Amino acid sequence: MDLYHCVSARSFRVLWMLEELGRPYRLHMLPFPPRARAREFLALNPLGTVPLLLDGDHRLTESAAICHYLAALAPATSLAVSQDEAAYASYLNWLHMSDATLTFPQTLVLRYTHFEPQERRQPQVADDYARWFLGRLKSVETALAEREFLCAGRFTAADVAVGYALMLADFLGLAPQWGPATQAYWQRLRTRAAFVRSVEIERQAALEQGVDPTPSPLLRP
Amino acid sequence: MDLYHCVSARSFRVLWMLEELGRPYRLHMLPFPPRARAREFLALNPLGTVPLLLDGDHRLTESAAICHYLAALAPATSLAVSQDEAAYASYLNWLHMSDATLTFPQTLVLRYTHFEPQERRQPQVADDYARWFLGRLKSVETALAEREFLCAGRFTAADVAVGYALMLADFLGLAPQWGPATQAYWQRLRTRAAFVRSVEIERQAALEQGVDPTPSPLLRP
Repeated sequence: MDLYHCVSARSFRVLWMLEELGRPYRLHMLPFPPRARAREFLALNPLGTVPLLLDGDHRLTESAAICHYLAALAPATSLAVSQDEAAYASYLNWLHMSDATLTFPQTLVLRYTHFEPQERRQPQVADDYARWFLGRLKSVETALAEREFLCAGRFTAADVAVGYALMLADFLGLAPQWGPATQAYWQRLRTRAAFVRSVEIERQAALEQGVDPTPSPLLRP
Repeated sequence: MDLYHCVSARSFRVLWMLEELGRPYRLHMLPFPPRARAREFLALNPLGTVPLLLDGDHRLTESAAICHYLAALAPATSLAVSQDEAAYASYLNWLHMSDATLTFPQTLVLRYTHFEPQERRQPQVADDYARWFLGRLKSVETALAEREFLCAGRFTAADVAVGYALMLADFLGLAPQWGPATQAYWQRLRTRAAFVRSVEIERQAALEQGVDPTPSPLLRP
């Protein structure tokens, strides 16, 4: 498998999943944003977005879909929740919520406080969507009140997918506004061996491939 | 099953899926936005969002996840793409793309050109995300250049999920900017018997339950 990735981007979900699964892969680091700074990538993905995962004839660009896909390829690892389990509906719901509901709003905060030039920044919109995100995140707090992981009584691909949304929110400085169960959950996730390994692999690959290894998008030039 | 729905909201995906599947359900119409205008709904869904699908002990709130879930419950209908089919990866990718990539940007256009009071409107942001949506939509145009449906050589839950994004974009006046394959695809989708039936069922249920039946969110007060 070939994974195209930018430091700390949504594609981190895929890197983390691959490390949880212990699956071999080639990691291709791109500068951010690749659409502008790695024009040759457009030949592989005309959208210019990461992740791009190539697996034989299969080609995926949506990070939460890739979490689902990789887990389904390796059911014995228990990262997948199968259709005959009671938690299947919940598993699907968390996978979709992770990106559509818990990540997109944060990209607005990033864009309008950091990536846009000064004259195009929109503090009102950034504030609207930081609050929107924190409102939706209450469903994570509720789910974790009496559970260690989101569904199925174990760590699954849904935790990787939602975990990335927490990583991004932590970079954005929103963690102090989370509930206690969400904060404790994030500590459990970020200290997993596969997570720690993914962060280190990302940093090493960025350095080797000549890409800025700074982990927080807020700190990059 | 119980579906909680607002006219023309993302929950239309679920209504349309249920009609494609011929599955019995109870349809509960809510005024938009339910968080403000149907406070009693918060007891069922503290997020205040639609869709909410209740199916016995299962509870789902993400429209694209529900498309996946309902299709998986009824594999014989061919709306589901199973894991042993070559198109499985593509199916997962389209399901996720339908909401995270093709619907969320449109909600920004709606919010900042229509739902917000005049002094909070943001024409720059609405324009940024109309263009963002149209850029990502090129992947639909490319996929349909030589195919009738998105994947697996047949109509699937992925077409329902992406079809709703096109319905919303049509309401927003963005259809003239689509490529010809996307326009023809939308005509095929909107003339399906189950789609036409869903629109009529939504209208009748809204009238019976005392909710404004106006289909386009742009035309509602």
